Amino acid sequence: MAKALRRRQRAGGRAGNAERRGTAAIEQMPWAPPVNIDRPVEPLDEAGIAAIHDGAMRILEEIGIEFLNPEALDILRGSGGCTIRDENVRMGRDFVMEMIARAPREWTITPRNPARQLAIGGRHMVFGNVSSPPNYWDLALGRKVAGNREMCRNLLKLSQYFNCVHFIGGYPVEPQDIHASVRHLDVLYDKLTLTDKVAHAYCLGKERVEDVMEMVRIAAGLSDAEFEARPHMYTNINSTSPLKHDYPMLDGWMRVARRNQGLVVTPFTLAGAMAPVTMSGAVTLSLAEGLCAVVLAQIIRPGACCAIGTFTSNVDMKTGAPAFGTPEYMRATQMTGQMARFYGLPMRASGVCAANVPDGQAMWETSNSLWSAVQSGANMVYHAAGWLEGGLIASPEKFVMDCEILQHIQRYMDPTLTATGPEDIALEAVREVGCEGHYFGIQHTQDRYTTAFYQPFLSDWSNYEAWEAAGAAWTAQRAHQVFHDIIASFEPPPMEVAIHEELAAFVERRKAEGGAPTDF
Amino acid sequence: MAKALRRRQRAGGRAGNAERRGTAAIEQMPWAPPVNIDRPVEPLDEAGIAAIHDGAMRILEEIGIEFLNPEALDILRGSGGCTIRDENVRMGRDFVMEMIARAPREWTITPRNPARQLAIGGRHMVFGNVSSPPNYWDLALGRKVAGNREMCRNLLKLSQYFNCVHFIGGYPVEPQDIHASVRHLDVLYDKLTLTDKVAHAYCLGKERVEDVMEMVRIAAGLSDAEFEARPHMYTNINSTSPLKHDYPMLDGWMRVARRNQGLVVTPFTLAGAMAPVTMSGAVTLSLAEGLCAVVLAQIIRPGACCAIGTFTSNVDMKTGAPAFGTPEYMRATQMTGQMARFYGLPMRASGVCAANVPDGQAMWETSNSLWSAVQSGANMVYHAAGWLEGGLIASPEKFVMDCEILQHIQRYMDPTLTATGPEDIALEAVREVGCEGHYFGIQHTQDRYTTAFYQPFLSDWSNYEAWEAAGAAWTAQRAHQVFHDIIASFEPPPMEVAIHEELAAFVERRKAEGGAPTDF
Repeated sequence: MAKALRRRQRAGGRAGNAERRGTAAIEQMPWAPPVNIDRPVEPLDEAGIAAIHDGAMRILEEIGIEFLNPEALDILRGSGGCTIRDENVRMGRDFVMEMIARAPREWTITPRNPARQLAIGGRHMVFGNVSSPPNYWDLALGRKVAGNREMCRNLLKLSQYFNCVHFIGGYPVEPQDIHASVRHLDVLYDKLTLTDKVAHAYCLGKERVEDVMEMVRIAAGLSDAEFEARPHMYTNINSTSPLKHDYPMLDGWMRVARRNQGLVVTPFTLAGAMAPVTMSGAVTLSLAEGLCAVVLAQIIRPGACCAIGTFTSNVDMKTGAPAFGTPEYMRATQMTGQMARFYGLPMRASGVCAANVPDGQAMWETSNSLWSAVQSGANMVYHAAGWLEGGLIASPEKFVMDCEILQHIQRYMDPTLTATGPEDIALEAVREVGCEGHYFGIQHTQDRYTTAFYQPFLSDWSNYEAWEAAGAAWTAQRAHQVFHDIIASFEPPPMEVAIHEELAAFVERRKAEGGAPTDF
Repeated sequence: MAKALRRRQRAGGRAGNAERRGTAAIEQMPWAPPVNIDRPVEPLDEAGIAAIHDGAMRILEEIGIEFLNPEALDILRGSGGCTIRDENVRMGRDFVMEMIARAPREWTITPRNPARQLAIGGRHMVFGNVSSPPNYWDLALGRKVAGNREMCRNLLKLSQYFNCVHFIGGYPVEPQDIHASVRHLDVLYDKLTLTDKVAHAYCLGKERVEDVMEMVRIAAGLSDAEFEARPHMYTNINSTSPLKHDYPMLDGWMRVARRNQGLVVTPFTLAGAMAPVTMSGAVTLSLAEGLCAVVLAQIIRPGACCAIGTFTSNVDMKTGAPAFGTPEYMRATQMTGQMARFYGLPMRASGVCAANVPDGQAMWETSNSLWSAVQSGANMVYHAAGWLEGGLIASPEKFVMDCEILQHIQRYMDPTLTATGPEDIALEAVREVGCEGHYFGIQHTQDRYTTAFYQPFLSDWSNYEAWEAAGAAWTAQRAHQVFHDIIASFEPPPMEVAIHEELAAFVERRKAEGGAPTDF
């Protein structure tokens, strides 16, 4: 099976080149973003959908959202569809639905390597790496430390290496050794040279988002017009729940909309803290906050490529700590999926956990969140690899472990697993073997065994004695070794010298200009 | 939340008494077997169902199954529906479907504590402990050892303690320190005195199965007629794939059918080894083997309470090792669920993994298998807590960890999570909090916070620093502590003295008679 898989990976073309690099560390599945063939799990009946929709519309109509950005307020005022008092914006449901109807149900993002183009929406499902933890943990360190550029680069290498990671989120860990004014320049340089996958820009001030769009354009060798012809990168903004969109998020959102790049809005509504304690209430609030950002984008650019995210979970009511991958989280994700389909918008979900180390709890919480993303029909899954401690820690072991689950999902969506043609039902094979033999040696098995089953790169299926003889390594230890093997053999994807030079020159110039001003 | 849960557990009655005992170790959910409110995941379309059905029927019609039991052959011959040559039995699809139609779609099992009665079929879902591993592993030992009676008793105590474990499987670990001739007597004595939940009998010779039925009857204080009026226990048999039912399994199956107890048949069809390498082929073979056992039961006792199990997975084609909780396993389980509904039979699935220790791999494999049981509409989930190394090891830490997932499933099926009444949508709460406040303190939250969210007993949701200060215990270490706390505070469920004495006397007499004869 190993050889067969490697052969599949080594199919020609530019993607083939990219995948050939660094495949020595493990045998992984080929690049093939899953198509979700399952019917979603739908806990809401029609009345439930109508109740949440009505609630979200009444929040927008009667209560309103604060838009803490004068330019956004001017645009909303000019639309003729909003009632604005100070920074509070209310909008009627007819207007909301009219604007949302402008958004495409499905769109694409094309990074510098066009073979890595992603479809967002429909039944497509893509996974991204963990984003934005300030801290880092790995098994060799054995403790939580502030993130630095080397750690960030290593996590970017993992993100590039794994074919089951389809897009790059924000910084996989905050490189706190780089000053905030120029951090985006260094990390984007690393991201665009170490990976050739879809990249992301933070909406944290105009310089950061404009610089990133410019760097993505340069890295792809595009003119301004080519860049703006369709999305080549994306941003993700969070509302400040409850009921607020802050200045820099809105500023970046509008800049990205103007340049026709991907727009994802993900309210972070923790039930019982910044949202109602009831899950449908928290989902309703999340939708109201998300939809009004989509409205703003559609006013600026009718047909802007938007997706609506969910980050609805609950807190531990004893301590206020956020919980992830709980039963409530799963149901909130499924409900949001139903509503995203109701509104005709692609949906973003997440792979999350509250665990502090890559142990059993980490995996049941992450399994719950990743599979609920599948069940909800989510299109983009953020933080799908590497997340610990509610997003405060990035871990390479957790990254590697999560990729095994992502490969499960990819394989699970292969229709050949449930094919029922005559050769699948295999009556003649059953007749041939009868009641005495076994199936190992027969032709029907020989013809199929190299591709019949999922082959893990991390799960150890040997028996206890063999496992013990090989060092008795628990999953996190094996993942640590895989992490090192991947980093040791990593080769960056190719980039034309002229483009590389232009990118480096841009970084140098912008650093000389001071990057993004900070007050420290 | 703790107090609220404990109050719910302390509701009166016999069940209340049973649950009050030993609740000190952890705060757990109350006894409440889940009702599966989700629509099953159904990878097969109508043509796929028809193809698998046709395949199974053609196996029974054209190839036949070996029934290695003269009495079973006589019964099948006498039915008029079978073509028998030596031990090979073929049966036409009309006859098969006529016999299967006799089986009830839903039935109950009532153990000695009637509050522990289980509904089998429909949307009911019940979980049982790990069964039959020869070996044991715990974190204090740190190695794999042969099971003994003390280990077996401890696992029975866990099985009784956890409200999310609804029935007792076979021996949770083989007590190899008890001679095989009397092992069933000692373990059943332990099982019936340490637990008051539904019990199981192995079909391993007439003495074992008859003794167990008698002991269950005595423990419940029933006359023969009362015992035989409805199921009070159950058996589970495996076919000898491919295409054989062996002597002792059939012997026990017929004995249990005659006494009107629960009957579960679970072929163990590892694709590529004892079944076709294709998943639908392995499911087809499994169904053929299972359905003909149901036919036999329905001839003996029309309306016999049967369920059809699935244990279809794949092998690692490199090593031949069985794999569990894989994508193929999930799809096979879902396909079997569709077919069980097609045949109108309750379905059994399993909670399984190939991992050797209770680590990350153990939890993603077990999560995959348990959630695929949910997705398949499975009614009984065997091995749902405590299984390692493909069923060769029982582990108390794994048991405790699995129970956290079982509680997730129980909570996930609570319809209040997705309720959308006006108080759930909570528009007035959103209006009250507005854009500045938070939801912790408001009345809407205060009225609900004690029951709003799942409260784990094992997951640690504290931040890294608090977790580190508390000892930096990984999940398996915490589970080990929970295991010890439960055993230390365990109190067995009440049993009337006269019944206890009758049970002990039965064991003593049967031991004196030699138990079940062995040739060693």
